[in-house]
Amino acid sequence: MLLAPAGSICAGTFTQSLLRAACVDLCVNRLQETLGKARAVLINSGQANACTGDLGLIDSLRATQELASRLEILPEEVLMCSTGVIGVPIPISHLLDSLNELIDELSEAGGSAAANAILTTDLVEKQFALEAHLGGRCVRIGGMAKGSGMIHPNMATMLAFLSCDVGVPSQLWQQMIKRVVDRSFNAITVDGDTSTNDSFLAFSAGAPLAEEYLDELEIGLTLVSQYLAKAIARDGEGANCLIEVVVQGAVDVSEARRIARTIAGSSLVKTAIHGCDPNWGRIVAAAGRAGVFFKNDDISLWLGPYQLLREGKPCKEDREIISRYMQKCLSGNYLVDDLILIRMVVGSGPGDAIAWGCDLSEKYIRINADYTT
Amino acid sequence: MLLAPAGSICAGTFTQSLLRAACVDLCVNRLQETLGKARAVLINSGQANACTGDLGLIDSLRATQELASRLEILPEEVLMCSTGVIGVPIPISHLLDSLNELIDELSEAGGSAAANAILTTDLVEKQFALEAHLGGRCVRIGGMAKGSGMIHPNMATMLAFLSCDVGVPSQLWQQMIKRVVDRSFNAITVDGDTSTNDSFLAFSAGAPLAEEYLDELEIGLTLVSQYLAKAIARDGEGANCLIEVVVQGAVDVSEARRIARTIAGSSLVKTAIHGCDPNWGRIVAAAGRAGVFFKNDDISLWLGPYQLLREGKPCKEDREIISRYMQKCLSGNYLVDDLILIRMVVGSGPGDAIAWGCDLSEKYIRINADYTT
Repeated sequence: MLLAPAGSICAGTFTQSLLRAACVDLCVNRLQETLGKARAVLINSGQANACTGDLGLIDSLRATQELASRLEILPEEVLMCSTGVIGVPIPISHLLDSLNELIDELSEAGGSAAANAILTTDLVEKQFALEAHLGGRCVRIGGMAKGSGMIHPNMATMLAFLSCDVGVPSQLWQQMIKRVVDRSFNAITVDGDTSTNDSFLAFSAGAPLAEEYLDELEIGLTLVSQYLAKAIARDGEGANCLIEVVVQGAVDVSEARRIARTIAGSSLVKTAIHGCDPNWGRIVAAAGRAGVFFKNDDISLWLGPYQLLREGKPCKEDREIISRYMQKCLSGNYLVDDLILIRMVVGSGPGDAIAWGCDLSEKYIRINADYTT
Repeated sequence: MLLAPAGSICAGTFTQSLLRAACVDLCVNRLQETLGKARAVLINSGQANACTGDLGLIDSLRATQELASRLEILPEEVLMCSTGVIGVPIPISHLLDSLNELIDELSEAGGSAAANAILTTDLVEKQFALEAHLGGRCVRIGGMAKGSGMIHPNMATMLAFLSCDVGVPSQLWQQMIKRVVDRSFNAITVDGDTSTNDSFLAFSAGAPLAEEYLDELEIGLTLVSQYLAKAIARDGEGANCLIEVVVQGAVDVSEARRIARTIAGSSLVKTAIHGCDPNWGRIVAAAGRAGVFFKNDDISLWLGPYQLLREGKPCKEDREIISRYMQKCLSGNYLVDDLILIRMVVGSGPGDAIAWGCDLSEKYIRINADYTT
């Protein structure tokens, strides 16, 4: 459970899937009703509570109402996130029996325990926090996430939570968080599927900040969210490295994003990287099907420090050396030195964007072929 | 080389990728110029001749001009298709030296040799022909294809050719072939990438048929094209079975298609099938992200003869029995008894569609991780 201070404002972004879980409906409706005045989030891991019919909604309503009455807040101020197997309902009496214990153990030092409790197939906890001095005060932003791939309709997927001790007006906070998500959680892919339960909830509570510092605050929110998003991509099922795709020189950001995300999501790019193959043909072919116009002669391409294409023409780099660089990244440490950078310049426009993904390995197949609901 | 009779009409459909090979540009331009009056197709396997700059176009022009002069036809009547590694030009002098031999060996019985010569990573030849009695005469349709996955930007991908000994006016033929392709080659996926060289050329030549038989002719064209398309999906890299996804009851065909193709392309559905896991959660989750509205309570789902969902509710089928059925399909014979059928009813509308794909195995990863340009 997360508990936010009285007066908190919460902005949420959710899965685009039509088949979203009842708890997602509940979050969306309550945030609309209360204009973002949320106080608590109840989270369960193991059962997605998606495709469970009316029972899904009944259980979510009941659990949040119970928690609200024990916390002495309004039911509309309690949100719920579930993650786990689709089609499986929450063992509701077990959940209700645990609420008192949950409230008793509530603690400002409980972040790590919570970050651990929300995991499913994840191999590592995902937490990040930063402090910044803005407008003469210390500003703190913290976050945690779970997800071992952008999408796992089974161990249904990505949840992330952020807190910020600056009070930001509701509408402005919504707009900031939307931009932050576009540059973080919406820029990662593991296998292209979307889950039924994806949710990101960002809380703002505290003294307001002078308007001139809001841009810097947004940079901080973006940094925390990008760290968590990258941690999810890096922990993608079967992954050995994080892939960062930077596209520059497009007509605008939206076109740059489409190219970057298409490259990061290409199975053939992901397997080439897994095989330590500096295969520029697959990278440009993926860019070519992104639905964005650019000229072949304008493409320059780098893999890490090595240039593969200069204005459409292959460079005479030593394949062996580049392959060794890739091997080193693939055997690197989690989020320390395991990043493979693909940088593509597609023209001289102002549009830049980044996307993140991971390599595609035999282990991904085994995890997903052997995993049984 | 394919040679069509004088007076032939050719309709072509090509890759939607921005980065298409020079030979694709050449085909598109010549078919437009001549209103489909093509006579010959020169095909090379091994070099995609894509991303090869001006040289790519110069080589394609030179090869087709040489062939035209030796066949004593117009250069505009000669088309060219290349398949192979991106970024590698055709060894043009070797190709030109072989033209006389190619013309000498031209034969009506040469179909099999041609179907074999166009292969790259394919494991099997893909040919199909049928005869039908229409309007008091025998009508013949034949086809061949190569492709081991919808997409292989490296061994760049799908080529298919069809001949029909019925003369059909150019514009009508174009429209028929477009509909045929929508129900065949556009309904298959192996890994979601698009190649630089995808081409389908369909020739019509001979006595015309009374208008009342044209619908039946189109059924024949569709059957031949669907056989070839399914053969490509089944021969997808690392595949052990063909997956057929039938979606029924959508608002229209276009919505049914989006759902069917999204399911067929889902990595999580493909790995579940590879693992013989009747995992309905992944199938409905894929449908949910297809961008098409339907009600959860309207979904019924079958895997082969077994029903998994009835109007949104799970059926109490024996998982072991369904898993054994899947195992049998995965070890079945190529295009004989290796089909896994997924059928989903999403409502009571008139929109039905089919898509084809294949399972995703560790072998796909090894083929694409180890394969080096």
